[in-house]
Amino acid sequence: MTYCVGTMLDSGLVFASDSRTHAGVDNFASFCKMTVFERTGDRVIVLLSSGNLAGTQAVISILKQRNAKDGIPNLWVAESMFDTAMLVSDAMRDVDRRDGQKLAANNVSFNASFILGGQIAGEQTRLFRIYAQGNFIEASLETPYFQTGETKYGKPIIDRVITRSTSLNDAAKCVLVSFDSTMCSNLSVGMPIDLICYQRDSLEVTMRRRFDIGDTYFNALGKQWTEGVRQVFSRLPNLDW
Amino acid sequence: MTYCVGTMLDSGLVFASDSRTHAGVDNFASFCKMTVFERTGDRVIVLLSSGNLAGTQAVISILKQRNAKDGIPNLWVAESMFDTAMLVSDAMRDVDRRDGQKLAANNVSFNASFILGGQIAGEQTRLFRIYAQGNFIEASLETPYFQTGETKYGKPIIDRVITRSTSLNDAAKCVLVSFDSTMCSNLSVGMPIDLICYQRDSLEVTMRRRFDIGDTYFNALGKQWTEGVRQVFSRLPNLDW
Repeated sequence: MTYCVGTMLDSGLVFASDSRTHAGVDNFASFCKMTVFERTGDRVIVLLSSGNLAGTQAVISILKQRNAKDGIPNLWVAESMFDTAMLVSDAMRDVDRRDGQKLAANNVSFNASFILGGQIAGEQTRLFRIYAQGNFIEASLETPYFQTGETKYGKPIIDRVITRSTSLNDAAKCVLVSFDSTMCSNLSVGMPIDLICYQRDSLEVTMRRRFDIGDTYFNALGKQWTEGVRQVFSRLPNLDW
Repeated sequence: MTYCVGTMLDSGLVFASDSRTHAGVDNFASFCKMTVFERTGDRVIVLLSSGNLAGTQAVISILKQRNAKDGIPNLWVAESMFDTAMLVSDAMRDVDRRDGQKLAANNVSFNASFILGGQIAGEQTRLFRIYAQGNFIEASLETPYFQTGETKYGKPIIDRVITRSTSLNDAAKCVLVSFDSTMCSNLSVGMPIDLICYQRDSLEVTMRRRFDIGDTYFNALGKQWTEGVRQVFSRLPNLDW
């Protein structure tokens, strides 16, 4: 399993991903699921990966390799975030074309999916959710965030706190608490957590952090959050029976 | 789907259940999933039902019918909550024996399951989770609550707030917020919500409420909770990049 979140705010974008991969509880490992394509002043593109690791790694390798060659449409020359989503989708279909049949014969599906977001100079920030089939949806005013993987435990707090006008800082804290809630309930989501807060129109990544097991800030956040919500409950009006 | 919660506190027990049943989004209805067997001064037994409605109703009808006859072991004469769990389990197996084969032939399983809790004079309060197979587990000091149905959305807030020493009032508020979170994310969980707070050693139900759509207290609770947690986030320390 995996847990990834991308949120689109008026002030920018927040991305976070866990690092656990596993094939059964007796076979787990740690891989970064966040990939950044950045050219300061021109573009910041962030990709969060979910699903079969062989599939997501192949997609990202193809994207990186194509970017190195001239004359082929690639993430460094794409003129819009929509075009970058199409490029990711194309790479996914290439991998599926190569591996899909072999996987299907062994009852494994090519289930790679992505959250893609960022900004290209001349455009607004944009955020996409790309399904395993390569089709995709874009975040809207009504639904300004996407999750992939183990989404349920961490969803309610995002729903209650994050709106388009939430600050980057508050949204980052909320996303981290959402990860904490998820990791408390599902062992297949695990640290380190990678976090990026992208400030709209900055066209560079200035706020990136990795939270490893025992991270002082992350632990304090979880503790203070728990104390805070207990206080909120004690102040809520009691039921009148 | 369904959402039911039973929690065991030092001060007593809190039970809550939603009322939605459905066979597809175009065929839903409302049924109370909470059944109470109460004899003041002697016993309070609360049963929360999940799963196939025909199955859970049959189990409860059998339990009620047997209770009316003398000489047969039943919920009114059981000497311990463990014995009541056995009686529920026996009734489940009776229904499965009658219907199981027919259901299986149509790819439907007898998936009724229950949260059972309460107190019989001379015993402590006890809480059980009875699986569809009729086997069951009992709540412990480490895990003082059980959920059935759509459990994920509403679990983190219970994990953070409810301990054995939480007051009945705070636990009730937390359980209601957990229902609100769940209903915001899953249309197959719906109001009315039935709630019982059972005060340890009272051996009678004095606190029972039903929350229907538009309930003033329930709506205020959700609103104040959302405002409260936003304030908690704004007070949490900002990330140091």
